[in-house]
Amino acid sequence: MKLYTSHRAPNPRRVRWVMAEKGVEDVELVEVDIMVGEHKTPEYRARVGVPHVPALELDDGTTISESVAIGRYLESLYPEPNLFGRDAREQAVIEMWTRRCEFYLANPMMLNVRHSHPALAALEGTQMSEIADYNRLGAERFMRTLDRHLADHAFIAADRFTIADIVATVGLDFARLVKYRPSEDLTNLARWLGECRARPAATAGA
Amino acid sequence: MKLYTSHRAPNPRRVRWVMAEKGVEDVELVEVDIMVGEHKTPEYRARVGVPHVPALELDDGTTISESVAIGRYLESLYPEPNLFGRDAREQAVIEMWTRRCEFYLANPMMLNVRHSHPALAALEGTQMSEIADYNRLGAERFMRTLDRHLADHAFIAADRFTIADIVATVGLDFARLVKYRPSEDLTNLARWLGECRARPAATAGA
Repeated sequence: MKLYTSHRAPNPRRVRWVMAEKGVEDVELVEVDIMVGEHKTPEYRARVGVPHVPALELDDGTTISESVAIGRYLESLYPEPNLFGRDAREQAVIEMWTRRCEFYLANPMMLNVRHSHPALAALEGTQMSEIADYNRLGAERFMRTLDRHLADHAFIAADRFTIADIVATVGLDFARLVKYRPSEDLTNLARWLGECRARPAATAGA
Repeated sequence: MKLYTSHRAPNPRRVRWVMAEKGVEDVELVEVDIMVGEHKTPEYRARVGVPHVPALELDDGTTISESVAIGRYLESLYPEPNLFGRDAREQAVIEMWTRRCEFYLANPMMLNVRHSHPALAALEGTQMSEIADYNRLGAERFMRTLDRHLADHAFIAADRFTIADIVATVGLDFARLVKYRPSEDLTNLARWLGECRARPAATAGA
């Protein structure tokens, strides 16, 4: 298998982190330079269908994009440590939290960065401060929800580290590009974030 | 089990459609009136954790929000007809397409409606035409990708109807609130959309 990935980009980092937690070493990494548009070439689009990284090319030629779909597929091949849930009920709770962390934290912070960081103007086309602000405010509302939740939960979605923690940490780390830091009164969030960032697998793709 | 749902709202409709395809009849429906803020009451927030519909309350008291997580959980209890994939590879392809349809079609069209429909001003707080336009343009780019894909695929993610078709159809149907219609030259999209709308289960929650 081959993983098309981009160093430092947030969605590829989610997959690299999943692979590092599981010790996956037999997937070939193919670096795609999105800053010079390598994800927009006809060859890449023909292979993946959309101009996005990451993408996982299976040995039968099927190519999967979307970082969480790739992560779940890798879990079917490398089950331990479990990151997506051991039974249907736990899978549902983890998927619920993963989606909350994507839709209300990681995606808004990503849009904030894309619409406010000078170096990303070329990638984005038109940057709009209204979109940057609207998304930051939405993410900050969810950070307060998450901080209350983490007051009596060690991790976001289960009694152990899961894909939801990866998605949330990568989202907050990406926001460091615009020097964003969560409000200092969110002490539970800070405790959890420090623990996630300290994991050995956290440096993969970062 | 109980499903907290709102008539005509798009995300609850996804779950109602999944239930109708599978003939699920033993889930109690609890109507939540979001136009008067019933999803924001302390009781509802305490139960679900976030002010969102739909939410599925299990018999053990666990409550799952996020429509796609609920749908996947229901598939574990009611496997047929299969909507989420029969093996890991098919599940990955269906999840990939479902996410593409959410992120690049349904969510942008939902934001377009929420930021442009006069009746939704109270629900949204501040409506911004920049956000409405930006999201409509993004959705229209993906509709062209989808139209090309549907030229030689009967359905979006497999050789049969799946959750990806539900997510995309519900997204396009919600946009009818602002009288939006896909461009008439997208003939493959129109063929597929007509077939999805004609399914008996399509009226559930619509």
